[in-house]
Amino acid sequence: MKKLINEPDAVVDEMLAGMVDAHPDHLRRIDGTQVLVRADGPIDGKVGVVSGGGSGHEPTHGGYIGAGMLDGAAAGDVFSSPTGDEFERLVDAVDGGAGVLAVIKNYEGDVMNFETALELQAMEGAETAEVIVNDDVAVEDSLYTSGRRGVCGTILVHKAAGAKAAAGGDLEAVTAVAEKVIDNVGTMGMALTSCVTPEKGEPTFDLGADEIELGIGIHGEPGTERTEVMSADAVTAELTGRVLDDLAIEAGEEVITIVNGMGATPLMELYVVQRALGGILEDAGVDVWDSWVGDYMTSLDMAGVSITVCRLDAELKELLAAPADTPALTVA
Amino acid sequence: MKKLINEPDAVVDEMLAGMVDAHPDHLRRIDGTQVLVRADGPIDGKVGVVSGGGSGHEPTHGGYIGAGMLDGAAAGDVFSSPTGDEFERLVDAVDGGAGVLAVIKNYEGDVMNFETALELQAMEGAETAEVIVNDDVAVEDSLYTSGRRGVCGTILVHKAAGAKAAAGGDLEAVTAVAEKVIDNVGTMGMALTSCVTPEKGEPTFDLGADEIELGIGIHGEPGTERTEVMSADAVTAELTGRVLDDLAIEAGEEVITIVNGMGATPLMELYVVQRALGGILEDAGVDVWDSWVGDYMTSLDMAGVSITVCRLDAELKELLAAPADTPALTVA
Repeated sequence: MKKLINEPDAVVDEMLAGMVDAHPDHLRRIDGTQVLVRADGPIDGKVGVVSGGGSGHEPTHGGYIGAGMLDGAAAGDVFSSPTGDEFERLVDAVDGGAGVLAVIKNYEGDVMNFETALELQAMEGAETAEVIVNDDVAVEDSLYTSGRRGVCGTILVHKAAGAKAAAGGDLEAVTAVAEKVIDNVGTMGMALTSCVTPEKGEPTFDLGADEIELGIGIHGEPGTERTEVMSADAVTAELTGRVLDDLAIEAGEEVITIVNGMGATPLMELYVVQRALGGILEDAGVDVWDSWVGDYMTSLDMAGVSITVCRLDAELKELLAAPADTPALTVA
Repeated sequence: MKKLINEPDAVVDEMLAGMVDAHPDHLRRIDGTQVLVRADGPIDGKVGVVSGGGSGHEPTHGGYIGAGMLDGAAAGDVFSSPTGDEFERLVDAVDGGAGVLAVIKNYEGDVMNFETALELQAMEGAETAEVIVNDDVAVEDSLYTSGRRGVCGTILVHKAAGAKAAAGGDLEAVTAVAEKVIDNVGTMGMALTSCVTPEKGEPTFDLGADEIELGIGIHGEPGTERTEVMSADAVTAELTGRVLDDLAIEAGEEVITIVNGMGATPLMELYVVQRALGGILEDAGVDVWDSWVGDYMTSLDMAGVSITVCRLDAELKELLAAPADTPALTVA
C-alpha cells in the first residue's frame, strides 16, 4: 500500500484538520469530535440540514458544508458510522431554533446511530426530521443495508434541501423537498479497481487485470456482476440503462445527471463517459437540464465511475440552481 | 491497462466532446479542431487570454475557460503539443480587438508551436503577447525543456491575467500581471505511481511497491530522486522546503498555496498533506491568504501530489479573489 498518509489511525483526524486549515471561512470543528459545522452557524431561524457517515468518500460530506447546502456533518472513521454521540453533538450544534433535518444514507450503522441521536435531541425539545437516501439501483439489499444503499444521489438531496432551508422553508417543506429528490433519483456504479483502506492496506476485493465490476457500493463491497473489461461507451450504456429503467424516465422528461469519479479516476475518463451519457439521453429524447462531472462521492482510491440521474420539476430546478458556497461546490 | 475509454486514439476527441456536452454555456469547440473557446466569445474590447498544451492534465486547460479566466485553449494529443495551426485558430478566435496574451507552459513543442502561431497572427495584424511559465523548482533543464518546466502554478497565471483582462486591463497590463505571478510562484511534485498513457498502455516509469519519486514532471518524466515510501508529513516537508527556498519566502510574507492531486490521489490524502503544509507555513511565520486543495493540473492516472506556493501583494490578491465562472473553478 502506498498512500499519502501518516499513521493509518490518524488519517481521519488529520484530514479534518486539513479541511479546516484550507477552509477556515467555511468550516469549524467541534472540539474533541469529528464533527464539522458552518463557521458562521448556527443560523438563527433557519432549518439546519445535516448529514454524515463514514470517511473515505470525500468531498462527501464535509465538503458540502456552507451557505445553501449543509450546516454540518459528522465524519466516522474510514467506512465506519459516526457514533450516536457525535451525531447528537452535530444536531445540537446546528439547531438555530427552526428544527434540523438529517439526511441519512441508507446504511445500518448510520441509520441506527443518527436515529438514536435524533430521538435524544427530540427529548430535549429539538424539532427534528429525517430522510433516508437509497438511490443505488444495483441491489435491493446489500452487505450493510436492508433496502438499497445511499450513494451519490445524496449530493442532490443536500443541494435541494439546503437551498430550501436557505430560502426560509420550514422543517416540513425542507423535508418534503428532500423526499422529492429521493423519489426521483437513481445511481449505479462500477469499478476498474478495488479501493484499499488505510487500516487494512490491501484491496477489499480482487479484480483481475482484465476484469471490471458492475454494481459496486462505496465501501469496498463487491459488485453484482464481474465482467471482462468493457469500453467506456458500453459501461455507460449498461449503467445508464439500469438507472433509466428503474426511474422509468420517459422521452420529454427533464433530468440532471452526475458522472461521478470514485476517487482515482482521471477527469479525462469522466468526460469520455459524459459524452456517451449525453448521446444515450439524446437518443432517448430525455432533456438534460444540467450535467455535473467530477468527484462528488468517492470510495478512497477506487478507480471507477457512477452515473446518477434525477428527474426534475420546476421546483427542483430552482433549488439546484440557487446559490451555494461550500468548499466542494460553488453555485454563483 | 484498465481505463474508461474507447479507442485510445479517440480519447482526446471524445473527452472534448464530453466537456462541451457537460458545459454548453461555457464552452464551444471550433469545428474540426481540438480548440475550445468561450461560448460567449470573443468579447469585444477585452484582451483575450489563451493557453493550451498536451492533453492528460485535466481540468487543465479547457476547464478554466470562462468569464474571469481563459478565453480559449488548444488541446494537443495526450502529452503532445497542439500544432501551430491549432494555436493559430485559437488566437484568431478569441481576438476581440484588444490583443491576445498566450500563457505558455515551458515545453519545447508548446513554445515553438505557440510562438509560430503568434508570429503568423501578428503578421495578419493581431496584437499579441506571450508569457512562459516555468514554476517547477525540481529541475533546471529537463527531458522536454530548456529551463524549468511549467506546471501547476500556471493556474494562478490564468486566474490573475484573466481577472485583469476582465477588469479592462490592456495587453501590456495583463501581460505584466502574468509576469508578476511567474516571478513569484514555485511548484514541486512527487509520485506514488507512474501514469499510464492510453496509447502505450503501460507505466512510463517503474516504481517499486515501497518506492516513491520526488521531482516528477507532468508528462511521465521520471523524477529527480527516488526514495523509500515516506510519510505524508515528510513528503510535504521536502516539497515545501524546496519551494520556499527557491522563492526565498520570508516570515511575514503573504502567500496562496495549492495542494494539487496528480489525477488518482484521493481528496482525503490531499487534505492530510494540506494539514502538514499549513503547519510548516505557520511555523515559518508565513501568512497564508488562501489554500486551494484538489485536482488542478494532473498527469493522467498518476497518484501523487504537487505543492505550489505563490507570494502575493495587494494587486494579486484582488485579482485572485475576483469573480470567475469556469467549469473547474468558480469564484463568486
